[in-house]
Amino acid sequence: MKLVEKHALTDALEFAVPSKVPTHWYNLTADFPEPMAPHLNPQTREELKPEEMHPLFSKALVEQEFSTERWIEIPQAVREVYASWRPSPLVRARRLEQALDTKVKIYYKYEGVSPAGSHKPNSAVAQAYFNALEGTKKLTTETGAGQWGASLAMACAMFGLECEVFQVRSSFDAKPYRRMQMEAYGGTCHPSPSTLTEAGRKILEQDPDTTGSLGMAISEAVEVALKSDRAHYALGSALNHVMLHQTVIGLEAIEQLREAGEEQADVVFGCAGGGSNLAGLSFPFLGENLRDGKTTRVVACEPQACPSMTQGEFRYDFGDVAGMTPLMKMYTLGHDFVPPSIHAGGLRYHGMSPMVSHAKALGLLDSIAVGEHETFAAGLEFARAEGIIPAPESTHAVAGALNYIKSGQARDGEVVVIGLSGNGLLDLPAYENELEKERQLKK
Amino acid sequence: MKLVEKHALTDALEFAVPSKVPTHWYNLTADFPEPMAPHLNPQTREELKPEEMHPLFSKALVEQEFSTERWIEIPQAVREVYASWRPSPLVRARRLEQALDTKVKIYYKYEGVSPAGSHKPNSAVAQAYFNALEGTKKLTTETGAGQWGASLAMACAMFGLECEVFQVRSSFDAKPYRRMQMEAYGGTCHPSPSTLTEAGRKILEQDPDTTGSLGMAISEAVEVALKSDRAHYALGSALNHVMLHQTVIGLEAIEQLREAGEEQADVVFGCAGGGSNLAGLSFPFLGENLRDGKTTRVVACEPQACPSMTQGEFRYDFGDVAGMTPLMKMYTLGHDFVPPSIHAGGLRYHGMSPMVSHAKALGLLDSIAVGEHETFAAGLEFARAEGIIPAPESTHAVAGALNYIKSGQARDGEVVVIGLSGNGLLDLPAYENELEKERQLKK
Repeated sequence: MKLVEKHALTDALEFAVPSKVPTHWYNLTADFPEPMAPHLNPQTREELKPEEMHPLFSKALVEQEFSTERWIEIPQAVREVYASWRPSPLVRARRLEQALDTKVKIYYKYEGVSPAGSHKPNSAVAQAYFNALEGTKKLTTETGAGQWGASLAMACAMFGLECEVFQVRSSFDAKPYRRMQMEAYGGTCHPSPSTLTEAGRKILEQDPDTTGSLGMAISEAVEVALKSDRAHYALGSALNHVMLHQTVIGLEAIEQLREAGEEQADVVFGCAGGGSNLAGLSFPFLGENLRDGKTTRVVACEPQACPSMTQGEFRYDFGDVAGMTPLMKMYTLGHDFVPPSIHAGGLRYHGMSPMVSHAKALGLLDSIAVGEHETFAAGLEFARAEGIIPAPESTHAVAGALNYIKSGQARDGEVVVIGLSGNGLLDLPAYENELEKERQLKK
Repeated sequence: MKLVEKHALTDALEFAVPSKVPTHWYNLTADFPEPMAPHLNPQTREELKPEEMHPLFSKALVEQEFSTERWIEIPQAVREVYASWRPSPLVRARRLEQALDTKVKIYYKYEGVSPAGSHKPNSAVAQAYFNALEGTKKLTTETGAGQWGASLAMACAMFGLECEVFQVRSSFDAKPYRRMQMEAYGGTCHPSPSTLTEAGRKILEQDPDTTGSLGMAISEAVEVALKSDRAHYALGSALNHVMLHQTVIGLEAIEQLREAGEEQADVVFGCAGGGSNLAGLSFPFLGENLRDGKTTRVVACEPQACPSMTQGEFRYDFGDVAGMTPLMKMYTLGHDFVPPSIHAGGLRYHGMSPMVSHAKALGLLDSIAVGEHETFAAGLEFARAEGIIPAPESTHAVAGALNYIKSGQARDGEVVVIGLSGNGLLDLPAYENELEKERQLKK
């Protein structure tokens, strides 16, 4: 509480070190050639009004959700938190280029330097800030691999909020370090589905051995928030305001490419689960395409096990299993689709952010689906050249880029940017299959 | 191999992004008011000659070991690797200051943004580079918690070398992710003592249930390197050339403090095991004290379980258990001292870097010993304010600083710098005791 009262909400603080942290978030909605389909009320199927979201979200976040302003100012308190790791590095992957023997210029934008190890704090910090400002005492959320849950727990600690996380059971069981990380920030973490909520109990009745899904965990977190006067809900992806917060990634990347002497990126590869990392990296590039005639191609890299955009339908669907969220027009595999238990838990989502979906439907970006073996092989190749072990989610973008270059589709001198959404330190067991194969070969 | 031939050893590469990476390492030896006692040959007890180190180390590294030059140029290929995460952030810990309700200005220098998660790559990259340049095919080493082993495995992958690591058994068993990390970089990791070496077998005969120690693991790694024509040995701490490579930390910190408008640091807190992180952060400050009349105080924070400087003797001793290393004049608890199995595996070393020891003996720095409970409590306090979960080693520096401030020893406006040598993501189970206490309190 002391933090909130005395510091975190004060906008007048100066930076200790001169900072290149962006001053505004970028809203692609302002530049879409056609407007997005509105979210719908799940009961009435009528256009969702902002006030209908107030039981779950802070007013400022709802305003951002509906905003069509191009630039939205980042509060100074949020920028100050960002400044402890932002701008994140944009690195020319010269050793990878040499290993591939290519004349393609490969850059990676690395979000793993954040305290939580991924891009997720970009939105977590903003959401915790706006909630604290409006008097919220607690945030609930869902998490897959745990990157979002850990990031929200961190942000809540910084702004004096309680944090309660429902983590998809398959990830909760496979990756115990993530629970410890959330607890280290003072948060609470339950495996989902749990017996703590009606939604969870209902799911467990039907399938006691379910491995869980993001859709189920969302239902539980939403239910807990709705039942409390003090609590709000926080979503780590999908919604417009989350995409907005993540655009600091792409805004920095454009500036950093310019400093490196590149006129534009030719192709940007990002992994896509709910869409937040892809949107964060690519939307500022798409904005320049739409406004300034740039021609950056954006490729969303999905897991073959959960290819919402590559194989799903573009239609209205719920964001969760229980049907408690608004109806959103998006690419979806169906809100009751339970993806197989892959390692990239952050990509196990049946739907896709409505903004990313709209961009895809308008032909502003492409999508591909990548197999799990290929992603980890690419991750190891990247790690051994560049030193960073990518998160399982990020390996999808690496695999997409490597395949593009190795298959000879890229021209010499072309500028390829890989979105490295996080590091894989807490996901190392996911690499065990690949490593075991190597151990056998060594014998 | 391709990397080595085609890229990594080429010094003419340009940086993709303008970089503030230091151009030279700083050698405190040049500024010591009295010369250090020389290393001695372990058999003859006569002054060690540089060529006696050549069976184990590259010529360039041996030259650095004996150098009294103040500034030693960093090869461009090493700077380019550094540039993917350096300069590491120096951050004003404003939320921590507010939580402590103090007018002390707290900064932390954060090495956890490196791909391996700690400061260790600063030397690993340099050692792999110089070895590759001279035709070494393989490096062997020891590791405690695993930060050094992982860093060397990473550096070896970048420069096309094999890497074989002996990890202290207690850490190998407690922290399986570290082995996976080394393997992800293509390295091999054995628990030590092992049956692969004479030294290991001899130790196991005497004590089959030993938890291992850094001193034992060094003996094993040295033995393997000596028995091979293709292999050299790499040490992650203690030796002069390792201290040298780490000085990029302090050189950057001084420049960053200047940019932040601070005339000098008043007190610098660093954790100390073998001494590499402490030296890296503090030596450039000590140099300014000696040359420019600055008055920065340096406090080495050791674990109470292994307080080499705080309770050891300043005398000649071996760096390892088997007595295979040169004799070095240093603070030591005795080379056969086996520290209790604490979580901060990187601090479980019986001795202390001869350079750090010499600085302490001359009164240039102070040392304190901190209890394990206090370190983890401080780590959580730091994590909840600043977002970064410190490595167990780093929590010693945090605890030292927090105690200094909370006990009222610090003046208002004083500038305190904490050396945050790494993040604790792969060491989260070490926090479990503290977290379990909190879970009990919540019930």
